[in-house]
Amino acid sequence: MISLVKPSALKAGLPPGTPIYTGQQTGTEVKINLIDYDPEHSLFLTTDQVEECAVHKDKPTVSWTNIDGLHQADKVEKLCQCFNLHPLTVEDILNTSQRPKIDVFDDYVYLAVRMHHHNEKTGKILSEQVSFVLGKTFLLTFQETVGDTFDSARIRIKENKGRIRKMGTDYLLYALIDSIVDNYFTVLEKVGEDIEMLEDELVERPSNATMQNIHFMKREMLLLRKSIWPLREVISSLRRDEIPLISQDISIFLNDLYDHIIQVIDTIETYRDMISGMLDIYLSSVSNRMNEIMKVLTIFAAIFIPLTFIAGVYGMNFNTEKSPFNMPELNWYFGYPFALTLMVVVGLGMFIFFKTRKWF
Amino acid sequence: MISLVKPSALKAGLPPGTPIYTGQQTGTEVKINLIDYDPEHSLFLTTDQVEECAVHKDKPTVSWTNIDGLHQADKVEKLCQCFNLHPLTVEDILNTSQRPKIDVFDDYVYLAVRMHHHNEKTGKILSEQVSFVLGKTFLLTFQETVGDTFDSARIRIKENKGRIRKMGTDYLLYALIDSIVDNYFTVLEKVGEDIEMLEDELVERPSNATMQNIHFMKREMLLLRKSIWPLREVISSLRRDEIPLISQDISIFLNDLYDHIIQVIDTIETYRDMISGMLDIYLSSVSNRMNEIMKVLTIFAAIFIPLTFIAGVYGMNFNTEKSPFNMPELNWYFGYPFALTLMVVVGLGMFIFFKTRKWF
Amino acid sequence: MISLVKPSALKAGLPPGTPIYTGQQTGTEVKINLIDYDPEHSLFLTTDQVEECAVHKDKPTVSWTNIDGLHQADKVEKLCQCFNLHPLTVEDILNTSQRPKIDVFDDYVYLAVRMHHHNEKTGKILSEQVSFVLGKTFLLTFQETVGDTFDSARIRIKENKGRIRKMGTDYLLYALIDSIVDNYFTVLEKVGEDIEMLEDELVERPSNATMQNIHFMKREMLLLRKSIWPLREVISSLRRDEIPLISQDISIFLNDLYDHIIQVIDTIETYRDMISGMLDIYLSSVSNRMNEIMKVLTIFAAIFIPLTFIAGVYGMNFNTEKSPFNMPELNWYFGYPFALTLMVVVGLGMFIFFKTRKWF
Amino acid sequence: MISLVKPSALKAGLPPGTPIYTGQQTGTEVKINLIDYDPEHSLFLTTDQVEECAVHKDKPTVSWTNIDGLHQADKVEKLCQCFNLHPLTVEDILNTSQRPKIDVFDDYVYLAVRMHHHNEKTGKILSEQVSFVLGKTFLLTFQETVGDTFDSARIRIKENKGRIRKMGTDYLLYALIDSIVDNYFTVLEKVGEDIEMLEDELVERPSNATMQNIHFMKREMLLLRKSIWPLREVISSLRRDEIPLISQDISIFLNDLYDHIIQVIDTIETYRDMISGMLDIYLSSVSNRMNEIMKVLTIFAAIFIPLTFIAGVYGMNFNTEKSPFNMPELNWYFGYPFALTLMVVVGLGMFIFFKTRKWF
Amino acid sequence: MISLVKPSALKAGLPPGTPIYTGQQTGTEVKINLIDYDPEHSLFLTTDQVEECAVHKDKPTVSWTNIDGLHQADKVEKLCQCFNLHPLTVEDILNTSQRPKIDVFDDYVYLAVRMHHHNEKTGKILSEQVSFVLGKTFLLTFQETVGDTFDSARIRIKENKGRIRKMGTDYLLYALIDSIVDNYFTVLEKVGEDIEMLEDELVERPSNATMQNIHFMKREMLLLRKSIWPLREVISSLRRDEIPLISQDISIFLNDLYDHIIQVIDTIETYRDMISGMLDIYLSSVSNRMNEIMKVLTIFAAIFIPLTFIAGVYGMNFNTEKSPFNMPELNWYFGYPFALTLMVVVGLGMFIFFKTRKWF
Repeated sequence: MISLVKPSALKAGLPPGTPIYTGQQTGTEVKINLIDYDPEHSLFLTTDQVEECAVHKDKPTVSWTNIDGLHQADKVEKLCQCFNLHPLTVEDILNTSQRPKIDVFDDYVYLAVRMHHHNEKTGKILSEQVSFVLGKTFLLTFQETVGDTFDSARIRIKENKGRIRKMGTDYLLYALIDSIVDNYFTVLEKVGEDIEMLEDELVERPSNATMQNIHFMKREMLLLRKSIWPLREVISSLRRDEIPLISQDISIFLNDLYDHIIQVIDTIETYRDMISGMLDIYLSSVSNRMNEIMKVLTIFAAIFIPLTFIAGVYGMNFNTEKSPFNMPELNWYFGYPFALTLMVVVGLGMFIFFKTRKWF
Repeated sequence: MISLVKPSALKAGLPPGTPIYTGQQTGTEVKINLIDYDPEHSLFLTTDQVEECAVHKDKPTVSWTNIDGLHQADKVEKLCQCFNLHPLTVEDILNTSQRPKIDVFDDYVYLAVRMHHHNEKTGKILSEQVSFVLGKTFLLTFQETVGDTFDSARIRIKENKGRIRKMGTDYLLYALIDSIVDNYFTVLEKVGEDIEMLEDELVERPSNATMQNIHFMKREMLLLRKSIWPLREVISSLRRDEIPLISQDISIFLNDLYDHIIQVIDTIETYRDMISGMLDIYLSSVSNRMNEIMKVLTIFAAIFIPLTFIAGVYGMNFNTEKSPFNMPELNWYFGYPFALTLMVVVGLGMFIFFKTRKWF
Repeated sequence: MISLVKPSALKAGLPPGTPIYTGQQTGTEVKINLIDYDPEHSLFLTTDQVEECAVHKDKPTVSWTNIDGLHQADKVEKLCQCFNLHPLTVEDILNTSQRPKIDVFDDYVYLAVRMHHHNEKTGKILSEQVSFVLGKTFLLTFQETVGDTFDSARIRIKENKGRIRKMGTDYLLYALIDSIVDNYFTVLEKVGEDIEMLEDELVERPSNATMQNIHFMKREMLLLRKSIWPLREVISSLRRDEIPLISQDISIFLNDLYDHIIQVIDTIETYRDMISGMLDIYLSSVSNRMNEIMKVLTIFAAIFIPLTFIAGVYGMNFNTEKSPFNMPELNWYFGYPFALTLMVVVGLGMFIFFKTRKWF
Repeated sequence: MISLVKPSALKAGLPPGTPIYTGQQTGTEVKINLIDYDPEHSLFLTTDQVEECAVHKDKPTVSWTNIDGLHQADKVEKLCQCFNLHPLTVEDILNTSQRPKIDVFDDYVYLAVRMHHHNEKTGKILSEQVSFVLGKTFLLTFQETVGDTFDSARIRIKENKGRIRKMGTDYLLYALIDSIVDNYFTVLEKVGEDIEMLEDELVERPSNATMQNIHFMKREMLLLRKSIWPLREVISSLRRDEIPLISQDISIFLNDLYDHIIQVIDTIETYRDMISGMLDIYLSSVSNRMNEIMKVLTIFAAIFIPLTFIAGVYGMNFNTEKSPFNMPELNWYFGYPFALTLMVVVGLGMFIFFKTRKWF
Repeated sequence: MISLVKPSALKAGLPPGTPIYTGQQTGTEVKINLIDYDPEHSLFLTTDQVEECAVHKDKPTVSWTNIDGLHQADKVEKLCQCFNLHPLTVEDILNTSQRPKIDVFDDYVYLAVRMHHHNEKTGKILSEQVSFVLGKTFLLTFQETVGDTFDSARIRIKENKGRIRKMGTDYLLYALIDSIVDNYFTVLEKVGEDIEMLEDELVERPSNATMQNIHFMKREMLLLRKSIWPLREVISSLRRDEIPLISQDISIFLNDLYDHIIQVIDTIETYRDMISGMLDIYLSSVSNRMNEIMKVLTIFAAIFIPLTFIAGVYGMNFNTEKSPFNMPELNWYFGYPFALTLMVVVGLGMFIFFKTRKWF
């Protein structure tokens, strides 16, 4: 949660456009993957030399440079300089706590998108920033960690499947964002399963942990929504045909992408409503259960109260010898059985009274 | 619930436009109904050969092809290819978990609408996707299961009733969507009856099941609203006169349709408000009832407390022989009657005190 | 409540434009009132022959035809055919569960408005649909039941008061809708009185019935709002000067009407907020009262608990003869007074303790 | 509250434009203040003759006519006729329960604004309608009661302070509305003080009266908001430069006024949020306090329960002479001290147990 | 809180444009910092003579005049007159309780922005108004107190770092607002830490203070949001390219600034949702804990109730000598052990009964 704020706070007092990496540091060397292709040829290259990527920059082929890991800020900065990116763009790429946004520059478009993973062990949803820089003949992608989300695109390029090799950088951008959005569905599926499990738990064995889980889910949805909602606006800008780098041909694909995002947002909203409903059910069922117990105990106590009173009466020490009015029952032949019978009758009577009134 | 997500998640990693059926599989053979008509002639045909449908594609007559069941994805795909549909459209037809939407292509319009049925046995509202592909001279409709919603249109075509035979594919599209919207009213009527029954139950014999039913209704309304709300926007696009395939003549019918959808949404919103109100009533009436019981029991206990105390006092063993101050009541001639009278007086006094204070 | 839906559900499966009356049936004959006037002349006529009305249709005079009762659907249909109304308009006139709306046709404008009456006996607000068909020289009005709302307009025409005889059909339309909106204020006044009574009840003697009344009011407001809110949009369309049948001259009157409707809606919203506030007050005051009672009883019990314990102690049967340590108090000269004093001291002490802590 | 509706309800059935005063009647004579000024001269006049005001109507000087009190409807009507006002305007001036609005006529502009006073004694906020009629050379103002809000403007005119004498009627209108809006801040300051006092009360000695005060404040804010919110729209229309009577020169002043109104609305919204928060605090603190008391009492009872049980055990009458197993404690030398010690040990043990569990 | 209103209320009755300082008075002398620079030269000057600043007004260099402290209203007014500011602007500068706003005049732009500091000791967020007056060649900044927020800009000017010396007054304005917005992140980071601490407290040791802290945070967020939200609109106006004083070159920086503000608002909304969630958790966990205690105590009492009853029965004084039916147990050889055993069996039985029902 704090991570939403800390990074930017780090930068207070620095001039705008200062490139500082705000994510977590790891010791590994940053690798750069370069894929260069046109309908006829394709080139796959892994390097740690920034200069090799810039070579393909101005060639008419599509040149896709992907960097996994931003902790070597100087390398990222160097790459950005090769491609003549604005200092503010470099700052945005390295500031990994941004909301999805689009910045249109004269010769390139910058997009920040958030990618999500469901961590199996903790059940948490991890969020990562992916930056895209779309040029006429190149596409740069910046990821925080090594991931497999873009593998299907790589395979399609390698094996020349579908239309990807025949289209330009804009289609490649679409294909990559599409794979991120597809990933949202995978995450939402997990969330859906969790909700289903929580619902079963709610019906069968609600506990304090159930409520904490519900609250946890609620917050996850809150953060998920916060990081996906602005993407709608970003894609909407893309398809409004005002960006020269986005060709008319892929507007139909962008419409499709837009529909998917709307569906993701819709599902998140539905899940939020469901989780709210679950919280209500939990609270009222816990309160009902508590009330039931209290009621049974109170009725139980209420039945014994007059019985104890009767026992108390016959435990009084009035002197039976002084007067025939003083507790004659004590000297009756069937005094004790009478008292016990009286107790049973009173107890049963109350039990039946409560039962007929449907008090339990 | 999970079904909202799973289908699309299935597709993560696949290239866009891959045709995969995301609904449930059944073993039956998919039947294709073809109706071809103009004001003078009409042709009714049931086949399982896709090619027979494409024959009428370019004829000036209205050619309506209906498919019940999408589980044979290859057949659907083949049909779509006959009509030159875009791969993304085929994907949309087969992905049966979409929200209502409209996609306008150069030579056809794609619409996804959701149809609802009230399952008598489970009381659940079932939701099914119906896809429409509107061309100049043809209309394709894709349903997930066999249903009778379109029967009234078929009869009107057969018996040449009303204006349906005299109009084009756009009127047919309108007539079919209108019959789906009319169906919403049937479903809402059922829901209205359920709400009325729940209200009676709420007044007469509220139980834990009542609350679960209220929550169930709440969720049903949530899902219903989610699947009907976007339809408003879809119809609104249709009537905005910007689609060449929709003629000016039917705009008045589309306005009427739009009004009906607004009314459906209005009713759903009203039902949601009512259900929320019912939940409030339930919670407060359960809590009231509980409180009433607890109050009566507590007052009951409170009356006995001083009585038991009195009995306890006269059960003390002070030695009356040692001093005239030690419990002289025990040796009184009317000691016991005095004690009993005292108890009755105290008990009655408290009863009256509570009664006058309107505590029960 | 169900009536919101049932009528339209009746029509599922029928072709669009089928005229079916969806309200309640009564056996009476439908009467038609015709008023035909210009600045110099006026004609009042009551008939049950539809044809007589159509006579005045094309004359330059203003011809107002009013029908009270729609249960003779054939008569209504016949009248509509005389005036060349579209089948969808006829359907709308007879389907009496619509939300307020406006349909602009080439040669007439159709308006549906809802009229409200406060039933004195049941306290319920009754809702009725009034349909208007505005032509160049004629105005048709369709009411469900016989009412006196339009009487003031009739008198003004008869006695040639104000400007009504000097203006056209559009002013007549305005005057009639204005009288319906004025009626809303009458209904709201009643509601205001009911709220005031409920508030007094809430302060003086809140009961379970109070809460049910609050909920009843809440729902009444919900339905009232639902049926008035869309009227705002309808009047807004009228005054936007886009309808040739509405002359520029009456736009100032339509503005005034619009202001009134805004004020009605404002008042409804305020009432809704007030009713919500009342519900909160009710719940918290009931819960407070309950808590007060429970607290007093619990304190009462708490005071007696140690007293009963003391009595219990001196009711123990330790053998005082075996040892001087065994309950010597029992043999004290002032043993019993000592015990009683002890009880009084403890009881008073606790009473004062609770009092100083402001526990009651 | 009812006053929101009654006035207008009075008018149901009357033709539009009927001048009826809907406020409270008082017996006093209505006074008319006339101020006529240009940069060089100024004339102050108090009269009860309507005709005297109309004299200055067409002179190029600024002529401000103010009426305190509307109960002499005929006088108001006469004045309005002198200035050629539309009957609907006269009706609006006299109907004192309107929401703020602006009506633009050909040769004048009508504005209705609400003025507020904080009644020191009752703590209530009183609301009054002020109507403005702005002409080229005249301004009419209609107040319900005599007030001092406009005095600062009068003094500035008299003493020729600031720019007021140099500007036209539009600046005068601005200056008067500005003084009304300044008054809102005075009222809000009072409300702020009340909220602060309520907060102190809430922390120190929350009572049932506190809650009623909170609810009272809530409703006051509701009504205040309702009567100020539309003013925003009114001023927004004024500054949109579309009204010829409003000169370009004062647009900067109108912007400032607009900012003030936004700030008033903002503050009202903040107060509403604060009051809602206070209600939550009240409810949870009352419930907490109640719970604390109940808990302490319950623990108190729980400690005595086993003690009373022990006393009960040694109060049993088993015959110690029949068997050495029958209650040998009764005959022990230290039997009674043992029992007392046992009780102290059990009681202390439970006390410590509860304490270590932090139950109180 | 009251400070939101008081200042402006002070001014009721005064003519518009009266310069009155509405903040707190301190005795210190107001210092004026002047920085004058172009790409080649820079001049730093601290003075208390207003006239020295006006000297640089019309020079083509960028002249930035900063005033820390507004309590010497005459000095501020004098400075403003040197720069020909409108009286309303002077009023706005001195009225320190405004919401962020922008006023565009012919030859300058006025901006009011709110700056925030987190007070370490009280944990409160302090709010201060910063006014900007942007001219072609000058920028005036007015702060309420001495602060270090603008120091980084001063250093960059002094050391000629970045592009600041090469750009005009508009870039300087951007750089200063940017440093204020960066400060928001610092404040939000503190808030985030507080929320994290509160969450830990909530889980480990929830107390009444926790709730008060949550409410305190809630209100802080309310006020923070209120003072930042309008800034969005202000920056949005700046970047809409309609203000001649703002050059095209810095629009990319303004976009970046806008994104940051959106992110701040987003974070505030997320925090508000989290705090609401925490309140829910607090209330339900307090209520749960309370219920747990009550339940355990009630079960404890319930177990002792029948035991005390048994003791009461054997404490009755029926005369065993009169009849063999009268309490023969008292004379049994193992009577007492039997009774004790009976009690243990009943107590254990109930314990097990409650345990198996999972009542505790």
